Amino acid sequence: MTLPPLAQYLPILDWGRRYDRGQFTGDMVAAVIVTIMLIPQSLAYALLAGMPPEAGIYASIAPIVLYAIFGTSRALAVGPVAVVSLMTAAAVGNIAESGTAGYVTAALTLAFLSGAMLLALGLFRLGFLANFLSHPVIAGFITASGILIAASQLRHILGIEAEGHTLVEILASLWAHLGEVNFITVLLGVTATGFLFWVRGGLKPLLKRMGLGPRMADIGAKMGPVLAIVGTTLAVWAFDLGEKGVAIVGEVPQSLPPLTLPSFSPDLLSQLFIPALLISIIGFVESISVAQTLAAKKRQRIDPDQELIGLGSANLGAAFTGGFPVTGGFSRSVVNFDAGAETPAAGAFTAVGLGLAALFLTPLIFFLPKATLAATIIVAVLSLVDFSILKRAWAFSHADFAAVSVTILLTLIFGVEAGVSAGVITSILVHLYKTSRPHMAVVGRVPGTEHFRNVLRHEVETQPHVLSLRVDESLYFPNARYLEDQLSRHAADKPELTDVVLMFPAVNEIDLSALESLEAINTRLKDADIRLHLSEVKGPVMDRLQRSHFLDELTGQVFLSQHEAVCALAKQVPGAEETAARREG
Amino acid sequence: MTLPPLAQYLPILDWGRRYDRGQFTGDMVAAVIVTIMLIPQSLAYALLAGMPPEAGIYASIAPIVLYAIFGTSRALAVGPVAVVSLMTAAAVGNIAESGTAGYVTAALTLAFLSGAMLLALGLFRLGFLANFLSHPVIAGFITASGILIAASQLRHILGIEAEGHTLVEILASLWAHLGEVNFITVLLGVTATGFLFWVRGGLKPLLKRMGLGPRMADIGAKMGPVLAIVGTTLAVWAFDLGEKGVAIVGEVPQSLPPLTLPSFSPDLLSQLFIPALLISIIGFVESISVAQTLAAKKRQRIDPDQELIGLGSANLGAAFTGGFPVTGGFSRSVVNFDAGAETPAAGAFTAVGLGLAALFLTPLIFFLPKATLAATIIVAVLSLVDFSILKRAWAFSHADFAAVSVTILLTLIFGVEAGVSAGVITSILVHLYKTSRPHMAVVGRVPGTEHFRNVLRHEVETQPHVLSLRVDESLYFPNARYLEDQLSRHAADKPELTDVVLMFPAVNEIDLSALESLEAINTRLKDADIRLHLSEVKGPVMDRLQRSHFLDELTGQVFLSQHEAVCALAKQVPGAEETAARREG
Repeated sequence: MTLPPLAQYLPILDWGRRYDRGQFTGDMVAAVIVTIMLIPQSLAYALLAGMPPEAGIYASIAPIVLYAIFGTSRALAVGPVAVVSLMTAAAVGNIAESGTAGYVTAALTLAFLSGAMLLALGLFRLGFLANFLSHPVIAGFITASGILIAASQLRHILGIEAEGHTLVEILASLWAHLGEVNFITVLLGVTATGFLFWVRGGLKPLLKRMGLGPRMADIGAKMGPVLAIVGTTLAVWAFDLGEKGVAIVGEVPQSLPPLTLPSFSPDLLSQLFIPALLISIIGFVESISVAQTLAAKKRQRIDPDQELIGLGSANLGAAFTGGFPVTGGFSRSVVNFDAGAETPAAGAFTAVGLGLAALFLTPLIFFLPKATLAATIIVAVLSLVDFSILKRAWAFSHADFAAVSVTILLTLIFGVEAGVSAGVITSILVHLYKTSRPHMAVVGRVPGTEHFRNVLRHEVETQPHVLSLRVDESLYFPNARYLEDQLSRHAADKPELTDVVLMFPAVNEIDLSALESLEAINTRLKDADIRLHLSEVKGPVMDRLQRSHFLDELTGQVFLSQHEAVCALAKQVPGAEETAARREG
Repeated sequence: MTLPPLAQYLPILDWGRRYDRGQFTGDMVAAVIVTIMLIPQSLAYALLAGMPPEAGIYASIAPIVLYAIFGTSRALAVGPVAVVSLMTAAAVGNIAESGTAGYVTAALTLAFLSGAMLLALGLFRLGFLANFLSHPVIAGFITASGILIAASQLRHILGIEAEGHTLVEILASLWAHLGEVNFITVLLGVTATGFLFWVRGGLKPLLKRMGLGPRMADIGAKMGPVLAIVGTTLAVWAFDLGEKGVAIVGEVPQSLPPLTLPSFSPDLLSQLFIPALLISIIGFVESISVAQTLAAKKRQRIDPDQELIGLGSANLGAAFTGGFPVTGGFSRSVVNFDAGAETPAAGAFTAVGLGLAALFLTPLIFFLPKATLAATIIVAVLSLVDFSILKRAWAFSHADFAAVSVTILLTLIFGVEAGVSAGVITSILVHLYKTSRPHMAVVGRVPGTEHFRNVLRHEVETQPHVLSLRVDESLYFPNARYLEDQLSRHAADKPELTDVVLMFPAVNEIDLSALESLEAINTRLKDADIRLHLSEVKGPVMDRLQRSHFLDELTGQVFLSQHEAVCALAKQVPGAEETAARREG
């Protein structure tokens, strides 16, 4: 299936042309369900990001529509998500005080920068960069973020002021304000949290017993937060708890998303550059894995580079309509999919629903206690916390374990940016380290055959004046110098050496650095009166070598097979031929 | 040859125990020759680095001795070199004015930081990091640096003030001061430059005709700068040219290297951190390639990690004895080697020679014109300029060409730090990009055999319900997601697909990210009613997989060979078996 170029960048042209009534019905039903679910979630994530509550709803409207136009997933629902909201609070909290105009502008600017970066990565097809965030690092980061988020929301449950972006800061700040606890808030918060935990575990079986199908029971259980919100809002209103010190959401403007402008101050842009990059990458990775999981169920196709364009447009949309950084969310996308969304039009209908809510429903949440929103956040993020990744990684490989532990520890101790940066850097360093020491084996002939095997693992024949080294990796700059080191070591250790044969059956590629290393090896061995030969060179590598002068300068020959090489280099005098057979392990 | 642990870190314990009279004679002769050559060179590089002249001599004394103790090369001569001196001038010039105490302190601090980094890299065996500076990037960087250095010295030849750390800045500054040219300085400078160019080309044949052996003629020609210095100093003294506006070296303290302290101000350390890192890596790479080239001629061995320790100690030495960053120099090491240096003791004797020079000879250079030093620098660095790397890279691979061009252009336009950083980043990005898209091939059976080949290159049999994908690379996080993308694409494009077989004959390793990708692939294919099988899995990879639950969850089987897989999965009804043979290219 090849698309015409425009449709490739505008997937809407593909599904839009074939849109029919059946799809419309599915999309409408899904949109209604997702809208009801998204209202509390949007308010809660705005609270988490330190933004005014309406910003959460605004951040779910334009981005959803833009993703519907440019994104490739049929079911992905874009909007504020927990981890990205936490990262927004951490980044913007360094620059301005929550609740100020500067804070909102910085959040818009962060969304703008992140959108521009995602768009650029998509247009230049650089999505592969996200690969360098390894699975264990992401798992560790999300677990640690979940803990940070839950800790940061405790203040709303306790009804006290507290701040901080690291676990230590948050806990110290909570401790310092512990005397100011508001017990009515605690009662509301703990009840809401308990109810929501029960909803997770108990509501679904209850709904099933009441006769709902398993899918609808699942969706019904996801509506729990709406019940908690309605219940606690009514309680605050009925008993006038706002007057008794319970923090409530208060006045929220009744308006469609406003037109807003991010700041283009170079200072602010440079301060937000690294956070925006990290948010973009984390958001993209989270989103694409949700999109691929859902697409697979219907054998649909996700184009990672186009996804970057979709998410980039969504964030740009958020920047110009009063939002903050967004990405594809897991739970909302699953609800959307399960509720029967057929096309991205479901997202557009959701946007209409949220727009109506922003216009007409905001007076109803005046009495909504912040503790309830905090409870929905805590219950949602605690499901992200999963330390079993440590056990899995330990069992599987210590390198992976190191990357996870570093990520978890640094996220908790130094905050999200330090944590995810350290995770990426650790992964890349471990990767570079492995790449820079490719497997190489000194080989000898299996007696009576034309096969050559590692001298350390097999009983094979070698000759003291010939060194046969099999290179089990393509040669390029990260490992070129290692080859030089290995050969100079062998040359220094074996005074009787006169011929070196490099076996290249596994070398798929040679770059200019490796070519220059081979030239240096050739010259140095020549200075030491050792000839250099090659054997079993693949066609494309031979083509490459012929584009340089290397083959003219080579002191030895290029043999088609290692057997041919060893026969040609065998000492003519039979007495001089020696069999050195070793066996280890 | 395995060394006891202490001797591994102190190579002097190895060669020192076996030191004999023959080696002593060779070392002494080499030391005398190198000392004579180093005096003008040290003064010149101090000028280039913006330091007082004596600092160049100091920077060659303690570092040489420390390298002799800790380094592994028998012939490497450590001291100020052109490229590192230029980088020092660029880094320190951003912080203080040349000629001030702050400038000297910053240079000492730079040497200290660079020494500490090299030492740390060596102790933690992180020398592999230097591999990520690819050969073409280094070649491009050195060529561009040579041009920058030559341009920066023109002011001394013209006798005017000029400054700047990029080609444009330097040329603009020269142009602005062109009215102030001192013609006597120009006469001296141009004569010295012409003489030194003649020395390069003409002195060696002349010495040979006079009966010297080729090696001694070579060494004699390297003494040319001493003649130029003596001649122009005498001219200045005789005709009192200092009074006529010729800039001279002037008073130089008569002293052994003083004890100095770098600054430990956190501000200064953080400003110099990145420059120190770049200087360390560039210096290490330059030094190790000289060391390996010379060691090969005598089948000696260089340990890269121990070299880091040697160079780190040398730079720490420079920091505490009035020097500036140093590394192993090419021309001085070659002279040392050719003059017959047998052990690092030659370096220690050179240090004694330079100490005597610092104590007794400095009054003799009072009248030395700076133009002569500039001439020696220009003639030395122009031999580094070699644009043929562009042609070589273009012919060999466009990726390498891109890395070289970026490095040369950015070094000239934005200076040394931007140039070398851009080069490293470009190399790593190109590498990551290549790594993240490993070669994979859909394969089919060569008719009548048990061999499987790429369907795009060979006429082979496939079945529409079975996809056989051969993975030609180890699976780890940079490419794990690519495999997911490829499989979701195939699953989306082939509605009749029921079985996928991943062939792993070339997969040497699987990390946790790849395992989780395989699990995701397994789950997603299951959702799409496609079974996942593996074939030709290597022993170590199988061991890894057995440490996880993947094999329990796998929807299909693990086949020993691809042939076995295809036979087992063939549709039983003969009519359903279809032969789809394709041939392209």
